[in-house]
Amino acid sequence: MSPRNTQFSRDDIVAAAFQLVREEGWNGFSVQAVAKLINSSTMPIYSQFANVRDLEDAVCLKALDLLKERMLTDLTGDRWIDQGIIYVRFAEEEKFLFRALWDARNVDLSKEMGKRFNEFIAATLADYLLFVGLDELEVRMIRLTRMMFAQKLAYWLNVNSNYLKEKGIPELEEYMRRASMAIYHGFRLQFSAESVSATHFCGKGGKNE
Amino acid sequence: MSPRNTQFSRDDIVAAAFQLVREEGWNGFSVQAVAKLINSSTMPIYSQFANVRDLEDAVCLKALDLLKERMLTDLTGDRWIDQGIIYVRFAEEEKFLFRALWDARNVDLSKEMGKRFNEFIAATLADYLLFVGLDELEVRMIRLTRMMFAQKLAYWLNVNSNYLKEKGIPELEEYMRRASMAIYHGFRLQFSAESVSATHFCGKGGKNE
Repeated sequence: MSPRNTQFSRDDIVAAAFQLVREEGWNGFSVQAVAKLINSSTMPIYSQFANVRDLEDAVCLKALDLLKERMLTDLTGDRWIDQGIIYVRFAEEEKFLFRALWDARNVDLSKEMGKRFNEFIAATLADYLLFVGLDELEVRMIRLTRMMFAQKLAYWLNVNSNYLKEKGIPELEEYMRRASMAIYHGFRLQFSAESVSATHFCGKGGKNE
Repeated sequence: MSPRNTQFSRDDIVAAAFQLVREEGWNGFSVQAVAKLINSSTMPIYSQFANVRDLEDAVCLKALDLLKERMLTDLTGDRWIDQGIIYVRFAEEEKFLFRALWDARNVDLSKEMGKRFNEFIAATLADYLLFVGLDELEVRMIRLTRMMFAQKLAYWLNVNSNYLKEKGIPELEEYMRRASMAIYHGFRLQFSAESVSATHFCGKGGKNE
């Protein structure tokens, strides 16, 4: 390794690759393009990364870090609703990074990132007030339903920024809040109807004794 | 055209191509494979289709017809819930056809099919009882929210039949019913809260006169 090869750190190279993918998608990414961006030959890149795929993986992981960081932003004071809005906005505003996260250039990494992301979100919601007092299956149904709704909305807005407008829905933030609260309160209604009928049953049993 | 070229109708050829894509996906599809399946040379295919893409499009349209036909099945007596279940089951059971519909081998056709499918569904729900008395935006929000939920669930089960089990949800039918009704009743709660506050406002105004 010549000194020239070490003047660029791993982080410098990942940052340059990340910038290319962020602005142009994988089409704009190549070892040559990264080298050009940092004014270097391709040598330092090959000396720091075993192969192109390692560099691609590093770009994906950096995109995941950015998404996770964004997910912690406080928008409305309601963490669960904020996360829905932020996730969908990320898909819309960071079109190429969003695709890099989930479009499975590296299937195993994509799965692993999905798992990590889910764990991260679950941890941030561990003390979320609206879920207190619900049992595990109840929270799971509410969260899974909102998650799939938000994932598909993110997908559509990633593909077409006008998607909601074309569907006659004026505003993402308001729609995300309403849909999330509808899912939440709708399930709560079901849970209380179930516990009322369970109570009735027990009550009746008690009376007969 | 020799007589031999006309012994296979357009429908025969599309049926064979459809069967290949249904069983093996686009990987199993080629003009040669279709010809082999109908025990023919490739000549009749080329004489009936301007190019391979026309035959591919015909396969996609046939898949859409099958999906639409399925969507009319009565499972539970509730058309809207049935449609959610049927759509997701189609994605799970007809993995390759589902992908052929939406994976955009022909982007324009995929968009056109999405539009036709949405119109078809809207027509079947025109007299759906639970939507009677709601205004257009209200129905739109309820339907769009359930649609995105069902689309993403369909996607996940298409990719992985164990998706729901892995998430700790035992049964698709029950979950689809619960999630759909949660979305429906949750939004209804919001609408009536809004109309109550509107009534209060009007009532107060009346009192002061």
